[in-house]
Amino acid sequence: MKKSIQLKSKVLARNDEVADGLRRKLTARGIFCLNLIGSPGAGKTTLLEALLPKLRDRLPAAVVEGDVKTDHDMRRIVAVGTPAVQIETGGGCHLNAEQVIASLEQIDLDGLKLLIIENVGNLICPVSYQLGEHQRMIILSIAEGDDKPLKYPSAFTSSDMVVITKTDLSPYVDASVAEMKANALLVNPNLTVFDVAAKTGDGLEAICDHLITLHGDLKQG
Amino acid sequence: MKKSIQLKSKVLARNDEVADGLRRKLTARGIFCLNLIGSPGAGKTTLLEALLPKLRDRLPAAVVEGDVKTDHDMRRIVAVGTPAVQIETGGGCHLNAEQVIASLEQIDLDGLKLLIIENVGNLICPVSYQLGEHQRMIILSIAEGDDKPLKYPSAFTSSDMVVITKTDLSPYVDASVAEMKANALLVNPNLTVFDVAAKTGDGLEAICDHLITLHGDLKQG
Repeated sequence: MKKSIQLKSKVLARNDEVADGLRRKLTARGIFCLNLIGSPGAGKTTLLEALLPKLRDRLPAAVVEGDVKTDHDMRRIVAVGTPAVQIETGGGCHLNAEQVIASLEQIDLDGLKLLIIENVGNLICPVSYQLGEHQRMIILSIAEGDDKPLKYPSAFTSSDMVVITKTDLSPYVDASVAEMKANALLVNPNLTVFDVAAKTGDGLEAICDHLITLHGDLKQG
Repeated sequence: MKKSIQLKSKVLARNDEVADGLRRKLTARGIFCLNLIGSPGAGKTTLLEALLPKLRDRLPAAVVEGDVKTDHDMRRIVAVGTPAVQIETGGGCHLNAEQVIASLEQIDLDGLKLLIIENVGNLICPVSYQLGEHQRMIILSIAEGDDKPLKYPSAFTSSDMVVITKTDLSPYVDASVAEMKANALLVNPNLTVFDVAAKTGDGLEAICDHLITLHGDLKQG
């Protein structure tokens, strides 16, 4: 067991180094990088489908899609007019920095201002792996129940933003958006919390504005 | 990397051995054991809250609750009158057989006919770890989207049953229960598929009947 833990921390330290290199490279090019983490079905791809067309003229983006299997999500992103590349992990429960770097060979970074990495659907394992991101965003659907920040705290303590999705379902589920927000902030008071209904468009503009501000800070920083 | 893979397969082989021992012990006592796997917020605990009172007189049960953090789920199960014990993994992304065996020291197995292990909310990592179960049940909420069996196939190929939950939400989401069923059966044609709305009680009786049949088969087998 000790051997296994030592090996794991070595793997993580090596991944951190690779991620740091990628982050520096992206910063130098003026590209803000976001790592999206959430459960299967939290609404990560649906959020991007709604968000990306609104950002097109202000913050040109590309997306790296991580999935255990299928390239469905990459196709959905391309269909809304944003360049995307798919990583199929074939069983792997998270992305790592090497995979992201390899995938970027298929994307033209010229003129990009935003790189979004949609991690594998998993609220636990992706937390330990830096991918070169400047910030992390947790995606959490109201249908998952408002106690989830308390039950999966490390995703929230290691992140900068939370987006509560599918708020149009809140009349039909035993969960409150206000309670979910309060629980997220209880775990990490520094989180910036948004709520959206991608279906109606409610809340999307606030996220766009925030991403544009973060990109501006990156260039000044 | 090769060293890491060898170490992992050694860990898995050892876990399989321990799980086999537990399965034999439970079989000898006439206890049918079920391993529940699903994403965070799939509705695993809510399904149990609805199911357990219906089973009480026919199939006395106990529950092992696995969570990264909190004992909320154990408390919810005890509140509906079923003995339960909590395993907090403190970051671990799945349960293992040793943890289950240790937790059973806190449960009186006399008179039990059903042991349900609710795994950590994760549709990927728990798949590789046998827990002594006779069968596996995947819990999948309709709010997660009907493509999930295609995107997380190993959970479905390694399982015996699927329960599609929260079907009362289907009028409000872009996902179809029929399509979700079809996708699950495409990945594994041997699955027994149920759909339920724990909120209204629809579909619960069919699961009760099936579990009673499975327990009967165990005694005859």
